[in-house]
Amino acid sequence: MNDESTPLNVFEYEELARQKLSPETWAYIAAGAEDEVTLARNRSSFERLVLRPNLLVDVERIDTSTTLLGQSVAAPILIAPMGQHAFACPDAEVATAAAASAASTIFVASLSSSRSIEEITAAAAGPVWFQMYLFFRDRGRSEVMIQRAQAAGCRAIVLTVDSPRWGRKERNMRTEDDLPWHIGNLAALPPGCYQYRDGAPATWADVEWLRTLTGLPLVIKGILTAEDAALAANHGAQAIVVSNHGGRQLDGAVASIDALAEVVAAVDGRCEVYLDGGIRRGTDVLKSLALGARAVLVGRPILWGLAVNGSQGAAEVLRLLQEELACAMALSGRPTIRSIDRKLVR
Amino acid sequence: MNDESTPLNVFEYEELARQKLSPETWAYIAAGAEDEVTLARNRSSFERLVLRPNLLVDVERIDTSTTLLGQSVAAPILIAPMGQHAFACPDAEVATAAAASAASTIFVASLSSSRSIEEITAAAAGPVWFQMYLFFRDRGRSEVMIQRAQAAGCRAIVLTVDSPRWGRKERNMRTEDDLPWHIGNLAALPPGCYQYRDGAPATWADVEWLRTLTGLPLVIKGILTAEDAALAANHGAQAIVVSNHGGRQLDGAVASIDALAEVVAAVDGRCEVYLDGGIRRGTDVLKSLALGARAVLVGRPILWGLAVNGSQGAAEVLRLLQEELACAMALSGRPTIRSIDRKLVR
Amino acid sequence: MNDESTPLNVFEYEELARQKLSPETWAYIAAGAEDEVTLARNRSSFERLVLRPNLLVDVERIDTSTTLLGQSVAAPILIAPMGQHAFACPDAEVATAAAASAASTIFVASLSSSRSIEEITAAAAGPVWFQMYLFFRDRGRSEVMIQRAQAAGCRAIVLTVDSPRWGRKERNMRTEDDLPWHIGNLAALPPGCYQYRDGAPATWADVEWLRTLTGLPLVIKGILTAEDAALAANHGAQAIVVSNHGGRQLDGAVASIDALAEVVAAVDGRCEVYLDGGIRRGTDVLKSLALGARAVLVGRPILWGLAVNGSQGAAEVLRLLQEELACAMALSGRPTIRSIDRKLVR
Amino acid sequence: MNDESTPLNVFEYEELARQKLSPETWAYIAAGAEDEVTLARNRSSFERLVLRPNLLVDVERIDTSTTLLGQSVAAPILIAPMGQHAFACPDAEVATAAAASAASTIFVASLSSSRSIEEITAAAAGPVWFQMYLFFRDRGRSEVMIQRAQAAGCRAIVLTVDSPRWGRKERNMRTEDDLPWHIGNLAALPPGCYQYRDGAPATWADVEWLRTLTGLPLVIKGILTAEDAALAANHGAQAIVVSNHGGRQLDGAVASIDALAEVVAAVDGRCEVYLDGGIRRGTDVLKSLALGARAVLVGRPILWGLAVNGSQGAAEVLRLLQEELACAMALSGRPTIRSIDRKLVR
Repeated sequence: MNDESTPLNVFEYEELARQKLSPETWAYIAAGAEDEVTLARNRSSFERLVLRPNLLVDVERIDTSTTLLGQSVAAPILIAPMGQHAFACPDAEVATAAAASAASTIFVASLSSSRSIEEITAAAAGPVWFQMYLFFRDRGRSEVMIQRAQAAGCRAIVLTVDSPRWGRKERNMRTEDDLPWHIGNLAALPPGCYQYRDGAPATWADVEWLRTLTGLPLVIKGILTAEDAALAANHGAQAIVVSNHGGRQLDGAVASIDALAEVVAAVDGRCEVYLDGGIRRGTDVLKSLALGARAVLVGRPILWGLAVNGSQGAAEVLRLLQEELACAMALSGRPTIRSIDRKLVR
Repeated sequence: MNDESTPLNVFEYEELARQKLSPETWAYIAAGAEDEVTLARNRSSFERLVLRPNLLVDVERIDTSTTLLGQSVAAPILIAPMGQHAFACPDAEVATAAAASAASTIFVASLSSSRSIEEITAAAAGPVWFQMYLFFRDRGRSEVMIQRAQAAGCRAIVLTVDSPRWGRKERNMRTEDDLPWHIGNLAALPPGCYQYRDGAPATWADVEWLRTLTGLPLVIKGILTAEDAALAANHGAQAIVVSNHGGRQLDGAVASIDALAEVVAAVDGRCEVYLDGGIRRGTDVLKSLALGARAVLVGRPILWGLAVNGSQGAAEVLRLLQEELACAMALSGRPTIRSIDRKLVR
Repeated sequence: MNDESTPLNVFEYEELARQKLSPETWAYIAAGAEDEVTLARNRSSFERLVLRPNLLVDVERIDTSTTLLGQSVAAPILIAPMGQHAFACPDAEVATAAAASAASTIFVASLSSSRSIEEITAAAAGPVWFQMYLFFRDRGRSEVMIQRAQAAGCRAIVLTVDSPRWGRKERNMRTEDDLPWHIGNLAALPPGCYQYRDGAPATWADVEWLRTLTGLPLVIKGILTAEDAALAANHGAQAIVVSNHGGRQLDGAVASIDALAEVVAAVDGRCEVYLDGGIRRGTDVLKSLALGARAVLVGRPILWGLAVNGSQGAAEVLRLLQEELACAMALSGRPTIRSIDRKLVR
Repeated sequence: MNDESTPLNVFEYEELARQKLSPETWAYIAAGAEDEVTLARNRSSFERLVLRPNLLVDVERIDTSTTLLGQSVAAPILIAPMGQHAFACPDAEVATAAAASAASTIFVASLSSSRSIEEITAAAAGPVWFQMYLFFRDRGRSEVMIQRAQAAGCRAIVLTVDSPRWGRKERNMRTEDDLPWHIGNLAALPPGCYQYRDGAPATWADVEWLRTLTGLPLVIKGILTAEDAALAANHGAQAIVVSNHGGRQLDGAVASIDALAEVVAAVDGRCEVYLDGGIRRGTDVLKSLALGARAVLVGRPILWGLAVNGSQGAAEVLRLLQEELACAMALSGRPTIRSIDRKLVR
């Protein structure tokens, strides 16, 4: 049953993808900012957490399903927004959308996708959320983009707020210009229409303005402190993603899993709280949920899956993580998402 | 006196066994779940503990003997239940039983042994305990198995509760099907009679039912938290084994030695408390006893001994550990098991 | 834009300099005292600090400028006093002075410079501070030296107090005599006029005396404890440099970043507090400022810049650090130096 | 001044000695018990301690001299008792005694020396202390040995109490029988007169008895806990050596430097407290004194010095450590032994 060629886990997908992709593409995907301290910390902080399983609980039926902003998913494992899936496989986000659907989960499609949001939603059977950067010179462009996403059927807007400047991804700096960037959503726009080659700044005032544009739920991504989490709730965010952008922005920033508890305490149930950064195992999902996250997002592993085996590879990565989560829930005596509590982690 | 070819310690047995066994068999024995974080933690947590020896105590006579559930042993070092000793040596559990007898200690024979419990008890001069999984489709099969064990002279039932699913031992997943599995206790049963290829689930209700089947003392193995320990005592367990199944079940679970103190506090003398996971030195036994264990169980080292030199090798592993324990007791001013107290460890 | 040959960060300058310099010169620059424990700790302590960025702040305009002793600088990153820049490039401190001016920052010129203070100030467009050792046999020599520095236009005196003996830089001990030492400021003096080949002792009484010699502000460099910081403030120091001399004096001494908080608390605003030791990234500057430093000084990286590309190299090192600092300020929601507060670090 | 061939520090002596000695001899000297966890911890615990130097103190004259049991030494660095110096150099303890005299310090000569105590004291210009094991079958032999030591001019008796059994030095176990053991003090005795090939047990009652035999001050060596330290003081010990026997007895035992503070607190000035285990640098001595030791003993480094250059090598090792201590005292603002206080270490 375990064919030599089938990866057993996400790390094996990573290794296969590294072999398959060009060094330039690999560097783009793998890079963290500067010394990659935060990138490494995202993993080491998960490994330091200790699980306290409970036994002799009835775990014959494990139910990983949950709802996020009222939308059902098979498991609390979403696809994180990332640009340029075409670097990993030709079908790009169309393949990813199919994978998300196969796994009955949500695809958070990036503004910087290779394909347009209309192509992506057309390929998706399940919910798609749209990730925005406010980097247009002309505010009207942002408004149009939100309207396109809404018209295409996106069910939430995810505003990434950790990138007022792009982080210095040095592993990638000497070769990034060799990559065939193509942003589907901007293809029809005149060149130079986005203001910041160097980042996507936004302020709380922009958040207020954004909320006037759409009735879609607003998710704020990139929060790492209690104080910002409270502000996000106060400004009407329905969800927060605790994230350091996969270690690609401020190097030295706190690991997302280490920031989670203070964020959860600060919002005190007023928002849903998600997390990304370093999720590679079902037990990472379990630890995140135990510390108060309602869901996690996975990024690079999806690109690894795409690189290794296209849409099917990405779906298989999601399936592996869902299966590992179910196994970890069974082994720790937590048969449902709701039963995963703070006492599970020390 | 120290012949080049005689292993000086358990780690040398490990190295010799690694050389002697096929890679597939080695992987089966050595594997931990997933990233083997818990497997490694079982060792590193022992190494971090610091001993505070007392000197100028009379240690001329060191007495390592103790009783477990009223049964006398030469030292509080038992043989942990493990399946398929035939992978390590042809005489399988018959050899192990003889080794336990030579070392005047208890052999906890696994339901998944290569040989039947009747063959094992016939080969043992000392007490044998029987380890159960509740994985039969038909409850009657479990009942019969308990009756067989009791009839064969087993003196306690050890119920393993940490395996509602089998952990993902990835080191072993690609080659496990090549191993010549043969479960002596199930040889006469029709194929498919056990319900769960994927695990052995049980609940507290099953524990209650199990207690109605036999007057033998019940040991619950796989407990890692104070709350489950209290429940075990409340459900009539006479002993608990603090265990993470040698790191083979939930990866990321607490090291057994790190869970010990809270379990001991929770049962507050109502049960005996044992520990397995990472015992490789007499000082590991000493540390476990100082933190409140009444005994420890050793697993893989016994298979290493069997692989290197059959029954005699397993007996020698036990002798080495007993000798190291005696030496450590002398060097720390604890001449008897009873004298080993909490102040010895910081 | 990222030419293969342009270093992306200070560590790449280090590697290029290592290739370019002779092993003897490299050893002189790189060496720490004895086992280089403090040298390593200067870095590892920065890496352990965790940043808590705030988002959605207006960071469109980042202002890194500040004032030090009332003197304006483009960024709170100064050039630390070091002897013998001629080891790194022929133009020596004349090149460094130009680099400081290009970067609009302060150059702290060492008494042990290759060039005289008069040559250095002549080459500098911006402020120069003069670093003193009290190592002359004849106190009058120190007085003359201070007068020369003042006459040359230096705007502060920095007294290094951590070198009553020179630390044992063993990496350098077998080859130091092969280096072409030439101290510009002492060139005209009779040989043997400085008392201590083995160090530059000074006491609080010397500090008092030094203050009678000049109206220039006095900076005391080498303080590592709250108690000495309070004494420095009591003795009229206008600023303190928390420093362990780049790990070149007392091995085992506290990392400067680990000593910073207690020094800041002890002076309670009576002095400005600076820090050197291990600054290699803009985020190191940010962490230092968050913990209460008003500025940092960089040492070895300047010599690496000089070695790689003379004055331009040193200026580029400063520019890189300033750019990284600005980026880190933007990414952490601190648009001005004044906005960098204690809550940014945990 | 730094000839290529002159070792700069104790670690360079170690490396030279390793090259010069046979593998069997090296193993004997280097070995720690079992996994050598305590051996490694003796060093790592020193490296973790952080020094807080005070500056601007008058350190022109550094005085490392002190008194131990009323006896003057040039520095608080003694030679620890070790058996069989002949393994390192032909003149054995006669060479060591000369080295101690050259360094104006105390030589603690072992009962297990290659040479007799009479030969050793004859070779020593300064004080010699005599280290005892109570391992004779016949108590009278111990009495005679004490009388011989006293008659030979020894000025204190050091009773080693951590060896009721010899630790398992596995690195050495396969080759120890090849070493040319010769115990000078026992040469004239009938074979078999010492009771314990396997150790030297003693009890508090033996301490009482020992005190009746001699008016010499009694030093108890091998104490690692507050409770034993208090007992030692109560039983009339004039000094305690906090020691784990260089990591050669109970593996896993606390590092001596980590046990020091509790011992110092427990004796509360009633005994002098010394320390051995891991001293390789002047800063190690400084840290020990800051934490309350009155002196330290060095062991293996003396054998390295003997191996490299006989008596002169051992003297040079002592001189290096004294010089490093003086330098560290100057750099931390502690000009006298008395001025070294608890605040120096954090």
